[in-house]
Amino acid sequence: MKGLKLALIKKKKIIKVKNIEIGRKPIIIAGPCSVENEKQIMESAKIVKKLGADMLRGGAFKPRSSPYSFQGLEEKGLKLLRKAGDKYNLPIVSELMDAKDIKYFDDVDIIQIGARNMQNFSLLKELAKINKPILLKRGLSGKIEEWLSSAEYILQGNPNVILCERGIRTFETLTRNTLDLNAVALLKTITGLPVIVDPTHGTGVKEIITPMSKAALAAGADGLLIEVHNNPKKALSDSDQQLNEAEFKELMDKIKKYK
Amino acid sequence: MKGLKLALIKKKKIIKVKNIEIGRKPIIIAGPCSVENEKQIMESAKIVKKLGADMLRGGAFKPRSSPYSFQGLEEKGLKLLRKAGDKYNLPIVSELMDAKDIKYFDDVDIIQIGARNMQNFSLLKELAKINKPILLKRGLSGKIEEWLSSAEYILQGNPNVILCERGIRTFETLTRNTLDLNAVALLKTITGLPVIVDPTHGTGVKEIITPMSKAALAAGADGLLIEVHNNPKKALSDSDQQLNEAEFKELMDKIKKYK
Amino acid sequence: MKGLKLALIKKKKIIKVKNIEIGRKPIIIAGPCSVENEKQIMESAKIVKKLGADMLRGGAFKPRSSPYSFQGLEEKGLKLLRKAGDKYNLPIVSELMDAKDIKYFDDVDIIQIGARNMQNFSLLKELAKINKPILLKRGLSGKIEEWLSSAEYILQGNPNVILCERGIRTFETLTRNTLDLNAVALLKTITGLPVIVDPTHGTGVKEIITPMSKAALAAGADGLLIEVHNNPKKALSDSDQQLNEAEFKELMDKIKKYK
Amino acid sequence: MKGLKLALIKKKKIIKVKNIEIGRKPIIIAGPCSVENEKQIMESAKIVKKLGADMLRGGAFKPRSSPYSFQGLEEKGLKLLRKAGDKYNLPIVSELMDAKDIKYFDDVDIIQIGARNMQNFSLLKELAKINKPILLKRGLSGKIEEWLSSAEYILQGNPNVILCERGIRTFETLTRNTLDLNAVALLKTITGLPVIVDPTHGTGVKEIITPMSKAALAAGADGLLIEVHNNPKKALSDSDQQLNEAEFKELMDKIKKYK
Repeated sequence: MKGLKLALIKKKKIIKVKNIEIGRKPIIIAGPCSVENEKQIMESAKIVKKLGADMLRGGAFKPRSSPYSFQGLEEKGLKLLRKAGDKYNLPIVSELMDAKDIKYFDDVDIIQIGARNMQNFSLLKELAKINKPILLKRGLSGKIEEWLSSAEYILQGNPNVILCERGIRTFETLTRNTLDLNAVALLKTITGLPVIVDPTHGTGVKEIITPMSKAALAAGADGLLIEVHNNPKKALSDSDQQLNEAEFKELMDKIKKYK
Repeated sequence: MKGLKLALIKKKKIIKVKNIEIGRKPIIIAGPCSVENEKQIMESAKIVKKLGADMLRGGAFKPRSSPYSFQGLEEKGLKLLRKAGDKYNLPIVSELMDAKDIKYFDDVDIIQIGARNMQNFSLLKELAKINKPILLKRGLSGKIEEWLSSAEYILQGNPNVILCERGIRTFETLTRNTLDLNAVALLKTITGLPVIVDPTHGTGVKEIITPMSKAALAAGADGLLIEVHNNPKKALSDSDQQLNEAEFKELMDKIKKYK
Repeated sequence: MKGLKLALIKKKKIIKVKNIEIGRKPIIIAGPCSVENEKQIMESAKIVKKLGADMLRGGAFKPRSSPYSFQGLEEKGLKLLRKAGDKYNLPIVSELMDAKDIKYFDDVDIIQIGARNMQNFSLLKELAKINKPILLKRGLSGKIEEWLSSAEYILQGNPNVILCERGIRTFETLTRNTLDLNAVALLKTITGLPVIVDPTHGTGVKEIITPMSKAALAAGADGLLIEVHNNPKKALSDSDQQLNEAEFKELMDKIKKYK
Repeated sequence: MKGLKLALIKKKKIIKVKNIEIGRKPIIIAGPCSVENEKQIMESAKIVKKLGADMLRGGAFKPRSSPYSFQGLEEKGLKLLRKAGDKYNLPIVSELMDAKDIKYFDDVDIIQIGARNMQNFSLLKELAKINKPILLKRGLSGKIEEWLSSAEYILQGNPNVILCERGIRTFETLTRNTLDLNAVALLKTITGLPVIVDPTHGTGVKEIITPMSKAALAAGADGLLIEVHNNPKKALSDSDQQLNEAEFKELMDKIKKYK
């Protein structure tokens, strides 16, 4: 893209997390929307490990539209996630909403920045001061150039940025969001940063998570972020779109030839 | 989708065009944006045939935003397209903009209805009176349910409808449109009609036509519509996004494992 | 706007319809969504005349998303509309969907082109061949420049074009569309054509039709298009958003100071 | 709106700031995009006071898309803004981006939360702990229901919330954003909170700020937020859309009858 006045995002980058190299071959990050209790996160971790996921995700600080929704277990949630990650030898990924909570993230392997904080510049500036990998989600109406500018904020001091496409907001109502794979293909031509795709939030429709996972890899994605829960029907958040063990198994089987 | 009060679109449909079965395995429809003259369409047809396309496309009646842009060769364009199709044994696809011109389409194998006519109900009703296959593009802001309702208009009398996703309009400006592969994956769960993808118009960015073609097939598309021109730089329309022979060859090579 | 390569749309234009001058002071066009039967259109016309409307609207050819919805009375509807217009001395406005029906519109004072036909270029070219005023609605995702280019098609031969903003499609779901008054204000700086606003379709929410009518006039609109029905609850189309007599009276009272 | 499970936003609220009552009759908040230096803010304050503004705005902490753009004078900027407000007897409004900076806002009369922080829930929770009035801007793709849910977060402890419509992101490119006055009209039917409109950012086109200001008041807005700079051409941010003295005078004259 001509005129894109961003230098740091252009450099090719492989991000190492323990023995995993993000940006080399596609990786799978899976786990529940929220960490709810020890049993739930342990069982969910067991499932994703067994079926071949590379990392475990789980939300502890939850950005919820309504103040009356479940807000997450916070510090305690991160400890449970770490415990599950340790037991199943899985690096962990969790969302940070505010720089003041960064002290709880020492044992988290990748810090996720959610769509609603893509342009929380104050938070981005703090992330430039650490060295931990940051998974930066695209905002709901974030233009690609703005998203890269947000990455550039972090890259001022922290070279470890992973981009994550998670669906944009359009007029279509049969899907929760419109997963924009054009962005993935385009990013691979203009940035050297790894690009991960989140088809769970990107579509919000369980039935199409698997085909869109295949499509994401075909478009050039460096990995997938998939919500998997040991018992989705009982989930405290996103109960309609988290995959259960059988559904995740099917996904992992079907994406094999696309990796 | 609950509540979708459309019956005809649900039936599984394989559409035969000469010896090609659309809806069985992915097909490739390729050719220039516009038929410009005999030499151009003959050379373009030769290229797409050589590289393995199943059908030849070419616009004769052109829907142009401005009255001052090239409007197409009309009847003469269709004759040249037929001649090229006959020489290279390729069925032909071309766009109809008005029912009054339907008389010129007797020798066209598939009639394309463009995005801007998705809800030209008067035209749709006329298409229900014939039996020729119709490739119905999604409107620029067409909801999936409206698109299917438009298909249902045609299906009142004509069972041969092929849907074509060609990008929706969003706020993103680095791409011309946002190719919506979610729609493709979703349609495969709610309709039995074949679904074709047009990554040329869907992205408007030459560099990502190949990865998005792979992604479209991975998402379940029954085929691709690709603009290929013998000399894109000299094209009278869409000169920035039509592929030349080398670029189309690369696309055909790279999509092989996704078909 | 720099670079807008359209000359005809720039000329200041007052359009005369009988003794009404559109583009001079704001006018009100009101009437039901559809002409349903003689009694309904006569009573509706009586209401809008009594409360001060300048013209009568009513749909006879109806663009309906679903083939299973009421499609309008067609030729018969136009005759009933003319009869009501004659009785109450109101010029009439009705939508044309297809050039082949233009023969029925001889007695219609203004031909409306609906949002879904904004880029039906074949129809636009036919409208350039007549001299009757055309009310050209903006498409659901029509960019302002495209809308003006469509007007330019008609202006090739017919100088009588009125633009009508009727809401664009966005992600917001509490309103049916997003009435874009920015477009109205902007058009008044770049074109000399009259600009009418349709807050009924533009919002789809009965409660806000009156404030948005005031806002439209304040933004510079040359008139309003309001759906009024003698008995909205029994209407065959748009029953939720047509105003009844009392509601239309309130609107007419409240907009007085903005005209 | 049925089903809106928010109780606190429904209560009618007049917000007192010194002797000004927001929610009673329309107020005007004006001033530069950024506080740049003492001379600039003093001269800008003098202009807006002279022409009748009720409050002074000015950014000290600036949310800029690019890390390479001017980021604001921060604490020093707030002190200069306070000095100007004191000299001209104008309450002041400025944007807070991070709860950690709240200590600098003791002397600020209204805290503005920008569009990009509409769903910064961590920040919203902190604002529920104070009692100072909060001007909460709508996000670029914020649904009305989400915006109200964000207000509800603050209202958990702080009853002083003012909503501010500032344009949503759409496909239109001739305007920077699409100012959504439907939202204003709709909010007045479902919430008791004051609603302010920002036509400067909402349109991004200087020529239409005045008509859209009139339209906003006609739609029911409780006030306007207008960018005014003593010398817009030299402004360090938003130089294209800030009004100079003559332009602001014209706006103030023209909106009189709409207040």
